[in-house]
Amino acid sequence: MKDDILRRGRLGLQSEEVTLFTSSLESDRWIFDSDLMVDEAHVVMLARQQIIGEEDAAKILTGLDWIREDGIELLDSSYEDVHIAIEARLIELIGEEAGGRMHSGRSRNDEVASCIRIALRKDLIELGSLINRLRLAFIERAREGVSLIIPGFTHLQRAQPTTLAHHFLSYACSLERSFERLTDAYKRVNLCPLGAAAFAATGFPLDRAYACELLGFDDLLENSMDAVSTRDFAIETISVCANLMTDISRFAEETILWSTDEFNLIELADEYTSTSSIMPQKKNPDVSELLRARTGTVHGHLVSVLSICKALPNSYNRDLQEVTPHLKDALMITKNAVNITAGMLETLEVHADVMFDKSLSGFSMATELADMLVRTAGLPFRTAHQIVGSAVRMGGIDFERIEEACERVTGRRPEQLGIERDQVNRALDPVTSIDQRSVVGGPAPEECLRSIRERERRVKADEERLKSINERLMHAQKRLDDAIKELRG
Amino acid sequence: MKDDILRRGRLGLQSEEVTLFTSSLESDRWIFDSDLMVDEAHVVMLARQQIIGEEDAAKILTGLDWIREDGIELLDSSYEDVHIAIEARLIELIGEEAGGRMHSGRSRNDEVASCIRIALRKDLIELGSLINRLRLAFIERAREGVSLIIPGFTHLQRAQPTTLAHHFLSYACSLERSFERLTDAYKRVNLCPLGAAAFAATGFPLDRAYACELLGFDDLLENSMDAVSTRDFAIETISVCANLMTDISRFAEETILWSTDEFNLIELADEYTSTSSIMPQKKNPDVSELLRARTGTVHGHLVSVLSICKALPNSYNRDLQEVTPHLKDALMITKNAVNITAGMLETLEVHADVMFDKSLSGFSMATELADMLVRTAGLPFRTAHQIVGSAVRMGGIDFERIEEACERVTGRRPEQLGIERDQVNRALDPVTSIDQRSVVGGPAPEECLRSIRERERRVKADEERLKSINERLMHAQKRLDDAIKELRG
Amino acid sequence: MKDDILRRGRLGLQSEEVTLFTSSLESDRWIFDSDLMVDEAHVVMLARQQIIGEEDAAKILTGLDWIREDGIELLDSSYEDVHIAIEARLIELIGEEAGGRMHSGRSRNDEVASCIRIALRKDLIELGSLINRLRLAFIERAREGVSLIIPGFTHLQRAQPTTLAHHFLSYACSLERSFERLTDAYKRVNLCPLGAAAFAATGFPLDRAYACELLGFDDLLENSMDAVSTRDFAIETISVCANLMTDISRFAEETILWSTDEFNLIELADEYTSTSSIMPQKKNPDVSELLRARTGTVHGHLVSVLSICKALPNSYNRDLQEVTPHLKDALMITKNAVNITAGMLETLEVHADVMFDKSLSGFSMATELADMLVRTAGLPFRTAHQIVGSAVRMGGIDFERIEEACERVTGRRPEQLGIERDQVNRALDPVTSIDQRSVVGGPAPEECLRSIRERERRVKADEERLKSINERLMHAQKRLDDAIKELRG
Amino acid sequence: MKDDILRRGRLGLQSEEVTLFTSSLESDRWIFDSDLMVDEAHVVMLARQQIIGEEDAAKILTGLDWIREDGIELLDSSYEDVHIAIEARLIELIGEEAGGRMHSGRSRNDEVASCIRIALRKDLIELGSLINRLRLAFIERAREGVSLIIPGFTHLQRAQPTTLAHHFLSYACSLERSFERLTDAYKRVNLCPLGAAAFAATGFPLDRAYACELLGFDDLLENSMDAVSTRDFAIETISVCANLMTDISRFAEETILWSTDEFNLIELADEYTSTSSIMPQKKNPDVSELLRARTGTVHGHLVSVLSICKALPNSYNRDLQEVTPHLKDALMITKNAVNITAGMLETLEVHADVMFDKSLSGFSMATELADMLVRTAGLPFRTAHQIVGSAVRMGGIDFERIEEACERVTGRRPEQLGIERDQVNRALDPVTSIDQRSVVGGPAPEECLRSIRERERRVKADEERLKSINERLMHAQKRLDDAIKELRG
Repeated sequence: MKDDILRRGRLGLQSEEVTLFTSSLESDRWIFDSDLMVDEAHVVMLARQQIIGEEDAAKILTGLDWIREDGIELLDSSYEDVHIAIEARLIELIGEEAGGRMHSGRSRNDEVASCIRIALRKDLIELGSLINRLRLAFIERAREGVSLIIPGFTHLQRAQPTTLAHHFLSYACSLERSFERLTDAYKRVNLCPLGAAAFAATGFPLDRAYACELLGFDDLLENSMDAVSTRDFAIETISVCANLMTDISRFAEETILWSTDEFNLIELADEYTSTSSIMPQKKNPDVSELLRARTGTVHGHLVSVLSICKALPNSYNRDLQEVTPHLKDALMITKNAVNITAGMLETLEVHADVMFDKSLSGFSMATELADMLVRTAGLPFRTAHQIVGSAVRMGGIDFERIEEACERVTGRRPEQLGIERDQVNRALDPVTSIDQRSVVGGPAPEECLRSIRERERRVKADEERLKSINERLMHAQKRLDDAIKELRG
Repeated sequence: MKDDILRRGRLGLQSEEVTLFTSSLESDRWIFDSDLMVDEAHVVMLARQQIIGEEDAAKILTGLDWIREDGIELLDSSYEDVHIAIEARLIELIGEEAGGRMHSGRSRNDEVASCIRIALRKDLIELGSLINRLRLAFIERAREGVSLIIPGFTHLQRAQPTTLAHHFLSYACSLERSFERLTDAYKRVNLCPLGAAAFAATGFPLDRAYACELLGFDDLLENSMDAVSTRDFAIETISVCANLMTDISRFAEETILWSTDEFNLIELADEYTSTSSIMPQKKNPDVSELLRARTGTVHGHLVSVLSICKALPNSYNRDLQEVTPHLKDALMITKNAVNITAGMLETLEVHADVMFDKSLSGFSMATELADMLVRTAGLPFRTAHQIVGSAVRMGGIDFERIEEACERVTGRRPEQLGIERDQVNRALDPVTSIDQRSVVGGPAPEECLRSIRERERRVKADEERLKSINERLMHAQKRLDDAIKELRG
Repeated sequence: MKDDILRRGRLGLQSEEVTLFTSSLESDRWIFDSDLMVDEAHVVMLARQQIIGEEDAAKILTGLDWIREDGIELLDSSYEDVHIAIEARLIELIGEEAGGRMHSGRSRNDEVASCIRIALRKDLIELGSLINRLRLAFIERAREGVSLIIPGFTHLQRAQPTTLAHHFLSYACSLERSFERLTDAYKRVNLCPLGAAAFAATGFPLDRAYACELLGFDDLLENSMDAVSTRDFAIETISVCANLMTDISRFAEETILWSTDEFNLIELADEYTSTSSIMPQKKNPDVSELLRARTGTVHGHLVSVLSICKALPNSYNRDLQEVTPHLKDALMITKNAVNITAGMLETLEVHADVMFDKSLSGFSMATELADMLVRTAGLPFRTAHQIVGSAVRMGGIDFERIEEACERVTGRRPEQLGIERDQVNRALDPVTSIDQRSVVGGPAPEECLRSIRERERRVKADEERLKSINERLMHAQKRLDDAIKELRG
Repeated sequence: MKDDILRRGRLGLQSEEVTLFTSSLESDRWIFDSDLMVDEAHVVMLARQQIIGEEDAAKILTGLDWIREDGIELLDSSYEDVHIAIEARLIELIGEEAGGRMHSGRSRNDEVASCIRIALRKDLIELGSLINRLRLAFIERAREGVSLIIPGFTHLQRAQPTTLAHHFLSYACSLERSFERLTDAYKRVNLCPLGAAAFAATGFPLDRAYACELLGFDDLLENSMDAVSTRDFAIETISVCANLMTDISRFAEETILWSTDEFNLIELADEYTSTSSIMPQKKNPDVSELLRARTGTVHGHLVSVLSICKALPNSYNRDLQEVTPHLKDALMITKNAVNITAGMLETLEVHADVMFDKSLSGFSMATELADMLVRTAGLPFRTAHQIVGSAVRMGGIDFERIEEACERVTGRRPEQLGIERDQVNRALDPVTSIDQRSVVGGPAPEECLRSIRERERRVKADEERLKSINERLMHAQKRLDDAIKELRG
């Protein structure tokens, strides 16, 4: 019978069935590295505070190194989590006299919270980079499409012509906000719960600030009860992912629509499509469909975590263990989705001719025409709207029908209002119309170029931000490594 | 370069990254056996309809047998799903001349839908059995608690005494409805989509009814477009799980509450608890907490599937692939949860004395007292309610305070209303009070015993139901096996 | 100061702020009628069991009549719910001596559960009728489209031609299952909790079966603790709605897609569209978009109810009050959605020519061609699939390209395999191809006609089912009315 | 027949049924004021840009004033939304010649997005204030409880003693992060979509920056397609609410638990409780239960909005209309919940004696004892943990049992390790133990006092932040009012 270092004192052993039910070891792979890092920083701090001897500390640090080299696979999988499996293995390797001291002034409650935050911040930084990659991909494709006129849709009905640049910039803009949300969330993720012990802190004279620094955290998560109980950072992070995935799903939907035979505005690269097991002609946008579907999966992860955290009393409850796999999976799905979207976007082929043709039809110049009536004849917009709407009802927005509608609505013929056939025709030209729509954020080529430059500037700034975050973390890692080296002699 | 049997005609190969993103192989483990069964039934039917020759059929069936023996691990994991990996392996094993005929008149769309339904019905039957096990556990523990008086709670405040039997029977009753829901769902799961092909049926003269029979389905899922597009059965099944888990979470919550130092009504078996890494005295109800948390996980799976299926146009879309892992996981979690709950319930220890003591205090006899005032003095219930409420406010429901309250409210003393001190005291005795509450569904011991017998009768009937479902399936399997044997000579 | 009939005994009054926070009066409108019905049945039963006198009963019944005539608006809105507001009003109208007796042997816990179930079953029956209306609308439109060839889609890519009848029948079939789910849920909704009192039953000698009968319930919800605590029927009913709405959202999506300029397969009736405040030519499918969006709203209601019910200990908790508005709203949205979908479907115009044209293009006959190669040349399906796929890659599936592909793949020319140009051309004719796809559930006109007749038969049978449910309820209402008349003389 | 100003051109009228289905007027009450403000700023800007004449502008502004005074009730409720109802009313009041010009260069798409953001930012600011009120309430109650020893729980089992201050500070800390999240969200809410028109901007020479300034927005939401299509700010805001409500639900749960007869740690003020209609002694924590339940409701709103926004193609789709009521309701519920929680917290009574008594029992000093063994005897923590765990198993942690356990585990008696009976007894004193736990964030009174001061400092800073936001908005309003006055002469 195993000498379970936790249960040997108080409780009998569990059946395999129950162990399997309660174990978190499978999803603890995500935090194995973080756990060793937390162990190291804790031990370095304990030694510095003279809570454990330097010799014991050195032994422990050596043992942890061996465990890292062996990897998680060599841990005893019958333990309920990675923390206790590591500690048990450490004791096996270096004996209880030294190994049994590692957990002084600490609990798994503050330990696991620290580990999750370290693993999560790594994922957040990676996600931030991937978002930036995707932003650049949209900016790049926008640049190619500055003068490319496309039909713009509302309610999926052709509405007004715009440019491909304008369309793709809408995603570049929206992704900027996702990046901001991510860095806002990062502020609340990268806080240090270590030292909170089970929830009530500890009588050992820990130096929480020092451990915090070695682990690269930006600040302490102060109150020890709050520190071990809260998973607000998980809810927030998955919320950020769910919001971002919703944007991804919107672009995925468009690639599905636009690559139909009917829309035919783009063609996806072969690599991002599949064929049918029965219909050999098919080229299906499977990647886009899966992006859309996995958005639903991330939404589900958010619901799970909210539901799990609801109405939990202070302080630690085992329910919190169930939060971790949702967090890990939501991040993994989101990172993959952003990455694959960038690849798909970079490789899709644009059907410029079809875009232009479609942008002409479907009465899409009706708004311009109404605006022209306002500007030229000084009609109220609502009256101009009625005239054009009536012409549409008659079947077209050519000069003849506009003439008829104008008389019906205003009792006067266009000429009497100072409107010539020529002006009507000019209003129906999409190139002129788009050039005119040059207000900030509009589709006019010059404005799109300005916006592209601004977007690029911001991606660059955000990359700098990630870089400085990374440097901070590397600096902390170096301090930790140095301290370890010093102790191990 | 791999000779991809699907893409070789139409599309180039995918990068590993994209393959990884789109592959369902990991979660296809769940349907590996079902897939081989579907292949077999399809081939037997094709041969019988002379769509393929008997010799080719025999070769295919032999090849499928080899693949089954090798297991899913030996399949080429670079294929996007188990269906095509099996077909590719088959062609590798027995050549394209025979192996290339298996997929005639079929598509992966109807194939996968058939596989999922077969894997799911197996899980549903197992879940049904586990629910029955749990019902029996509640019935058994109810039987021990027929005369055991416990405090009953509303709003978690002690309200009126009841019996442990009454309490546990509430779960036995609610689980009956979960079992019913499960069998209602089963009716809509065990329908056969095979023969729908991609969605538009096929020109091959398939005998859908025959394949349906060989696979043990109860009926065809008729319309071929509906057959491949719908995942309503997945939504329904996970809804059943979510509803059931919600009941499990309620019992889990009670075991957490009842095993606190404060309630102290039960003690969980060591096996179902854990201790702390830092507080050696702790005996924590971790299993119950995880049951509670996993309820949230199942809720999330339901949301994912609803979100994935929303607004998908006809017919098959790749999004549907993402439904399967949610379905599989929801069922697995629910089965484990029901099973572990039964074990925990069977082994928990009841603190009968504490239950009785607590059932006496906290004014829990106040309702009985009010009822007595109605019955004896003929007071309107609302007046009696006010008298007792006032006495509570004065600090107790003994005769003296009732006397004072009665005078205040009615202007008369109890004696004038025909109420003696003795009657008040009798009304405060919980045993008498519970005996009196013998209406159908009430806590009186005799009524609980009747209800226990009724519950047992129903479990037995439901077990019979599962048995006959199982027999039907085994009968179908035998027909399939016989047909295979005949073909293979 | 109001003489609050509940709080006057025990507690002081609440601030308006708190009352507003806790009151359910707004959403209690839904159950006002049910509540009076429950009051009446309870009083009739109390009188029959001689728990209250016949004279008092008659007075109460008269008072309840007055309250019904006055309507919910005349109740004192400062009470926390409709039950106590009715009781207070009753006492105001007929005095406490009689009115104070109505609540004998009852609690608001069993009362409200009874009221909700009565209101809900009415909604369920109405929803059942509306589903049947929608099924008939799909059947009717399918009948018009039996010979109308349309492009069938998978992954939103044109796949194979099918018929409009086949397409619409897929919805008629799926709605059949929603109707089944609804009636399955009805079985678990129409159960009687009355008599459970607060949760612990009562010492008054109630006749639960008699009240159950008067209220038209099919059976008792037996265990009194279960009876007041469970909201599984709410979860189940909203799950049924969420599943149904998901189907509605899929059809809504198709109407949005099909009425784009690009697909142009249908035109929605003006009544079901809106225009733009700025683009006068627009005809937007707003109704379809709202159907799609409200599916999301119903999904949210389901999540709320699951989250609310999770981990609630026995028995009644005030949380349950928050379930009711979600239930009511989910039903209301779903009923409206089904109704409006039927109207939209009935009035939409089909563009038959466009449908036919599109069904020809896009290589949609490729599968037929591959099948023909199998049937005529005896090629394995997988080989035929490769030949056709290669031809697609070359740019077409005409005889020349098939010839070339055939040689490349098999090393032989078509003629050597017994395939003539003529056969290839016939395989490319959609009418022939659809006629051939006559397996059960296929698109062949004759098969669609059979399916239409079967669908009609089932709608009729289901309408009979609703009719008999309704008759049962009217019969119960008559018994209750008769009993009231007798008591009131 | 109504002369519908939108549909008169293009489409026939809708049935009442459809109008009812599509109308947003009911939930538009929330944005009525904002809409008038947006109209005003737009008109002022149009006049300044000479797109409309000053005289027309003055007339419109006067008309808008009349409409504001009349209120939303006087608008024609048969219009589909508040925007068009206001415009129609304006035309009715001042004629189409002037009134028909208001909508120049604008669409309802950018209009409604602006209105929602203005209404929402107001709610966010109010919510921010309420959060600060609640933070102060926790801080205040913490101050009273600095020396009040209470049992601390993990897994709802008594774990280690802590102080009430420490417990309440955990909420004050967690609410700080909710406040931060709220202000982070505010940055992305208070952006100006006006000028985006339908999605494609407009050819009118708008000055977007000027309108933005008049409306108090912090910046433009630049890209016009993004501006009208995105509801990421709604998802983010409801995520913040869901996260905050989850914290509220945790405190609500504790008030429910702590006010049970069993825990008996607090008593809620009468005002925040209800009684039973049948059990006159009951004092139920209904407000807490509803707080808990409404958390589920807010979770559902989040799901709805995510589900609605998923996979919507660019740009505006009517689905977005369905987002607004969820946003409005989520904010309203959250504001009420935070407010009512503060009131409940401020008025609850603490049972100091019970808290202290419970903090002594249940082996809650076991960790201290183990720590002492580490510090005094230099034992490894894991060994000390085992000794104390064994003593617990023997039934107590008094000196005798510790002695026996020590011998068993280490083979030596306590004295041999330098441990005296006296030291064991001191370790069992909770006051000493808490005083020792003075690390940052720990429960030691001095540390709690420091933390209280820090929390107060932060609330004050955050109040300043809200104040400056408010001043910015008032300043903008003044500029708008001045501009209006100038135009109206």
